[in-house]
Amino acid sequence: MATDRTTPGGPFLPADGDPVPPALRGFARAHAALVELRDDPPHLLARDRAPARRVGLVSGGGSGHEPLHAGFLGRGMLDAVAPGKVFASPHNRQVLAASRAAAGPDGVLHVVKNYTGDRINFGIAAERLRLAGIASRRVLVDDDVATDSADTATGRRGTAATVVVEKLLGGAADAGLGLDELADLGARVAAASRSLAVASRAQTSPHTGRPAFDLEPGEIEYGVGIHGERAARSVPRPPTADLVARMLDAVTAALPDGPGDVLVVVNGLGGTTPLELYGLYDLVAGDLDRRGLTVADALVGTFVPALDMAGFSLTLTRLRPEWRPWWDAPAVTPAFPRANGAA
Amino acid sequence: MATDRTTPGGPFLPADGDPVPPALRGFARAHAALVELRDDPPHLLARDRAPARRVGLVSGGGSGHEPLHAGFLGRGMLDAVAPGKVFASPHNRQVLAASRAAAGPDGVLHVVKNYTGDRINFGIAAERLRLAGIASRRVLVDDDVATDSADTATGRRGTAATVVVEKLLGGAADAGLGLDELADLGARVAAASRSLAVASRAQTSPHTGRPAFDLEPGEIEYGVGIHGERAARSVPRPPTADLVARMLDAVTAALPDGPGDVLVVVNGLGGTTPLELYGLYDLVAGDLDRRGLTVADALVGTFVPALDMAGFSLTLTRLRPEWRPWWDAPAVTPAFPRANGAA
Repeated sequence: MATDRTTPGGPFLPADGDPVPPALRGFARAHAALVELRDDPPHLLARDRAPARRVGLVSGGGSGHEPLHAGFLGRGMLDAVAPGKVFASPHNRQVLAASRAAAGPDGVLHVVKNYTGDRINFGIAAERLRLAGIASRRVLVDDDVATDSADTATGRRGTAATVVVEKLLGGAADAGLGLDELADLGARVAAASRSLAVASRAQTSPHTGRPAFDLEPGEIEYGVGIHGERAARSVPRPPTADLVARMLDAVTAALPDGPGDVLVVVNGLGGTTPLELYGLYDLVAGDLDRRGLTVADALVGTFVPALDMAGFSLTLTRLRPEWRPWWDAPAVTPAFPRANGAA
Repeated sequence: MATDRTTPGGPFLPADGDPVPPALRGFARAHAALVELRDDPPHLLARDRAPARRVGLVSGGGSGHEPLHAGFLGRGMLDAVAPGKVFASPHNRQVLAASRAAAGPDGVLHVVKNYTGDRINFGIAAERLRLAGIASRRVLVDDDVATDSADTATGRRGTAATVVVEKLLGGAADAGLGLDELADLGARVAAASRSLAVASRAQTSPHTGRPAFDLEPGEIEYGVGIHGERAARSVPRPPTADLVARMLDAVTAALPDGPGDVLVVVNGLGGTTPLELYGLYDLVAGDLDRRGLTVADALVGTFVPALDMAGFSLTLTRLRPEWRPWWDAPAVTPAFPRANGAA
C-alpha cells in the first residue's frame, strides 16, 4: 500500500465511543488528593476549600478543552465542575448536582463561557437552584473579539479569559467576598479581558481521526473558535511577528481604558509546542513594551485548547491594581501554574 | 486551488531560522521570578536553591522536549540547564558555563539522557571542570526499553524517566546529600525506571512544516524515540486497552524486582490531548491493579514530548520506600506539578 500522507493519525481513545468517562476516571484517580468524581450525573468536586469562602464557584462546559475546567479545581480556584461531552454543553442536571454539592452559605456563582448551550443549561440549573432555596448568580465570559459583531445576537464567544476569571474569582472568594460582590467582580474581569485565536491546522476529529476542517497551504484561520468554529476568513499566513502585531492591534483596541497593567495569556490550542508558545511570548512582550503596556504577569502554556488544534490565542486582561492580590493568591489545583512574576 | 489535505500546518515560529533563542528569551521573561537566562553561551539558572544543597544539579539536551529540562529549574529540582538546538546536544561550552554557575561546595551532578552527542558534550565539560578543580559526576538516564538490544553499543535511550530522576535528585540534594551519594542515587533511580513510547503521527518538522515521517493508515510506530527515531517496526494499531497492556508487559518485565510501589508517568509526546492521556491513565491504573502493582503516585501530562508528535510514553519507576520523601518534597519550578497523591 502506498504511503498515505493524508493520514493524520487518530487519537488514542478507548474503542467504545465517548472518551469523556474514562478521562474523568483517570483524572480523578491521578489527582485523588485534590478532586473527587461523583456520578449520576457526572460532576467533579474539589476536596479542599478555604474556611473564609462563602460562595461555591462552579464552572463547566464541553470537554476537549482540558485542563479547563477540571484542572482548575481546588483551593483558590473552583469548587465544582460539570463536564459535558466533547465540545457539548453539560446537562443542566450536572450543573445542578455540582452546584448543590459546592454551595456555600452565600450560595453559588456560575462561571459560564458564552455559548448558547451553556447559557441554557446553567440557566435551567439556576432556576432549579432558586426553587431549592439556593442563591446563585452567573458570570458570563465573552472575550473573543473575532465574534464581536453586530451581526450576531449571541455575542462574543468565551475562551481563554475564563482562566483569568476563575483565578481572580477564586482569590476573591477565599478572601470572603459575598455572592453579589463576586458576581460584580467577575463581570468586571470579563469586561476587562479580550482574546483572539488563530490556527494552522484543525483539531483531529475523535470520530474520524482526520482534521475537522481543511486549510489551504500557506493559509491560517484568523479568528478560529475553540470548538473548531471556522473564522470569518482564512488569510495568507504572515510572518509570525506581523501576525502577533495584528492580533494585538485587535485585542488592545477592544481593551477598556483605565488604570492597571495587563495580564497576558499565550494559550496553545493543543498541538502547539512550548517552543512556539514561548517564542510567541517573546514577540508579545516586546510588542506590548512598544505599545507602552506593562505586563503584570503572564501565563504561557496550553490552558484552553481545542483538542489538538495547531494554533494559539492571545488574551489580555487589564488588571486593576486592587485585583492583584487575588491573582497572586495561592491556587492548589492540578493545572494552574504558580504566578510567575513575569517581567 | 484544490484543498490539499496533506498540509499539516507549519508551526508558529520566527521567520529567521533557529526557534530556540526567542523561546529562551520568552521563557526567561515569563518565569523571571524563577529563572535567569545567561548568554554566550546560552544557559539557564534557577534563582533560588535550598540552603542545605551542596551539589549543583545540571541537566540539558536538545530543545523540542519542553518542558524538559528548563521547566524543571527551581528550588527542589535543577539548578542549571544547557539547552541545545532542536533535537541537538548542547555544546560543551554551554554545559561548562551552566556547571560553573551552578556548582555547590560539593561540585556538580550532571543528569544526562543517553545519547551519544549528550554523553560527549557533558563528558568534555566534565573534563574541563576537573581541570578547573570542580568535582563532577554523571547520572545517565537510559529508560527506553524499545532500544534495549544487544545489537547496539549505545544502550537504551533516555526519555521520560528523566523527570523522575530530576525530581528525586532534587529532593535528595535539598536534604544535603553529597556528590557521590547523589550520583549513586541517580544511578539507582535510573536503573529502577523503564519507558516505552508509541506514536500515531510524527512531529511536524520546523523546517518543512510537514510530518517528519509517514505512517500507513491504521498503523502506529511502536517504540518511537523522542526525536522521531523510527521504531524497529510499525504495527497495526490495536485497541487502546490492548496497546496499553502490551506496553506494560514490556515495561514491567524490565523493571527490577524488590520493594516499592511504582511511580507512573503517562507522558504525551506533544500533540496528544489531556482527554487521551487521562483516559490512558485510567487504563494503566486498572492494568497495574490487575498485575498487583500499587501506584505510589502518577504524573499525567506532557513532560518530555517530541515537538508535536501524536503519541505517548509510559514510564514506571519502582520507588524504594526511602526515596518517597524526595518525591513528595516541594518543587518550585515552571512546570513540575505538585505531587498529586494518585490512588
